[in-house]
Amino acid sequence: MSATEPPQQPALKLALNQRTTKRWTVAEAVDGCVRHGLEAVGLWREEVAEQGLAASVKLVREAGLRVSSLCRGGFLTASALGGANAARAARAALDDNRRAIDEAAELGAACLVMVVGGLPGIVPGERPTAFSHDLPAARAAVAEALDALAPYAGERGVKLALEPLHPMYCADRAVLSTLAQAVDLALSYPEEQVGVVVDTFHVWWDPQVFEQIARAGRRIASYQVCDHLHPLPADVLLGRGMMGDGVIDFAPITRAVLDAGYTGDVEVEIFNADVWAADPDEVVATMKERYRSVVTP
Amino acid sequence: MSATEPPQQPALKLALNQRTTKRWTVAEAVDGCVRHGLEAVGLWREEVAEQGLAASVKLVREAGLRVSSLCRGGFLTASALGGANAARAARAALDDNRRAIDEAAELGAACLVMVVGGLPGIVPGERPTAFSHDLPAARAAVAEALDALAPYAGERGVKLALEPLHPMYCADRAVLSTLAQAVDLALSYPEEQVGVVVDTFHVWWDPQVFEQIARAGRRIASYQVCDHLHPLPADVLLGRGMMGDGVIDFAPITRAVLDAGYTGDVEVEIFNADVWAADPDEVVATMKERYRSVVTP
Repeated sequence: MSATEPPQQPALKLALNQRTTKRWTVAEAVDGCVRHGLEAVGLWREEVAEQGLAASVKLVREAGLRVSSLCRGGFLTASALGGANAARAARAALDDNRRAIDEAAELGAACLVMVVGGLPGIVPGERPTAFSHDLPAARAAVAEALDALAPYAGERGVKLALEPLHPMYCADRAVLSTLAQAVDLALSYPEEQVGVVVDTFHVWWDPQVFEQIARAGRRIASYQVCDHLHPLPADVLLGRGMMGDGVIDFAPITRAVLDAGYTGDVEVEIFNADVWAADPDEVVATMKERYRSVVTP
Repeated sequence: MSATEPPQQPALKLALNQRTTKRWTVAEAVDGCVRHGLEAVGLWREEVAEQGLAASVKLVREAGLRVSSLCRGGFLTASALGGANAARAARAALDDNRRAIDEAAELGAACLVMVVGGLPGIVPGERPTAFSHDLPAARAAVAEALDALAPYAGERGVKLALEPLHPMYCADRAVLSTLAQAVDLALSYPEEQVGVVVDTFHVWWDPQVFEQIARAGRRIASYQVCDHLHPLPADVLLGRGMMGDGVIDFAPITRAVLDAGYTGDVEVEIFNADVWAADPDEVVATMKERYRSVVTP
């Protein structure tokens, strides 16, 4: 290394998604970020509601933290089931998403993460009774709902971040299953209104991941990291592990996200029974160490 | 319906993959197919070995059954781990695949289904110790192994059928994760040597499924059906259900496979604890009824 040329540092900054430290309230997560020297936090609507929206805004402002994301809007597929109940559910979903957009605006969140919903009538974790098998219709319903929500978000300075979820969640959580599909959809809206989330857990397997990250370019609104555990636990939702504990090769993905022009925060978002049972301060310390040793190129 | 024009019937014929009736030996599966009026059976190497290869050949010939597939070759990624042990494992895998090709030739199987293997060093269902995170290298190892195996298969009149597996099996079973990827790979070999499997469980979620089935065209060497259960059971390998018990809309996929020019057998291949616990004759009867009511367009 030459003495005159400093080593090139990634422009990215580590952030805590508060669901990683599930026991922490907004106040505790904000305090934890400050104590551990993190500059940004990803918040969840449920925890923000418990703390109170105004109180949460005050907490992050006074701490000088960025809000890297608000999780989450979405679940937009109800209308595809058809009938009066479905139409009512679809209207309720739009209303709820407008509230989520308002909250993201108040918090000054970099984006509102959108988990778009699965086949209408299917509830995560439950054996379905009445539901629609029509996947193309569910996907069309997402696009239709975004037509209504994107301008609303744009007026409030909020970017909707479409999150493609791993295909194993297609039935119950997100009919957006690949980054290509999310980018295709995002590109039909202005860049300031709709972007995409790159989450390593959801995209690591995709043969097109590098070309689609490059294609996404400045549409990348959020970069989230966690590992993909093997074998998966009984509840596949909790297959997200600490970086380094699973099968993902992070550095090439982080490099691709950097090369695509992303300069935002890198949120660690882990759903995992063992991580949730651990001391949150230890989790944050481990996550900082693994970020350096495993995630950055 | 005009009296002079008979209704157009699908060219497809229902077949039993013997793993659906896991308790049945080759002899019992052959007998079951005959009793239930099925013309073809998909066999597994383990069961063929137990029955004896020559005895299995005799059984299917005397019964007048087609062998719609032999399951399975593959697990070709070992070399990507590097080192002498890996090289040895890779040579052993090639030898084993040549034996599988010989067996498929003896049986007159329509194809040898190839489950190409996951990240080298990862064993299905086990927590990995030493393994490679390098997914592109594992994918390259598959192509390299196929370079050696495809001509060998061609000389023996056997078609290798590359099976893309659902992305949730990428780490441990198949680094071929999409139909597009399987078709890309198949197209680098002569049509009589390498084709692809379309298995509803593995591809139903794919936003590109219809265009990739059309693109596969005459490369489709096998069409396998079963449903995708929701929620998934604790062992995700056993998430394959009887058609109609899960979330898949079969008719459009079957229509696309027909439109692509496929005229072979439709194998029902179910891995499911409840189906395996049931009376195999009842399973075959249900599968015939569901084939008519759910699978055919």
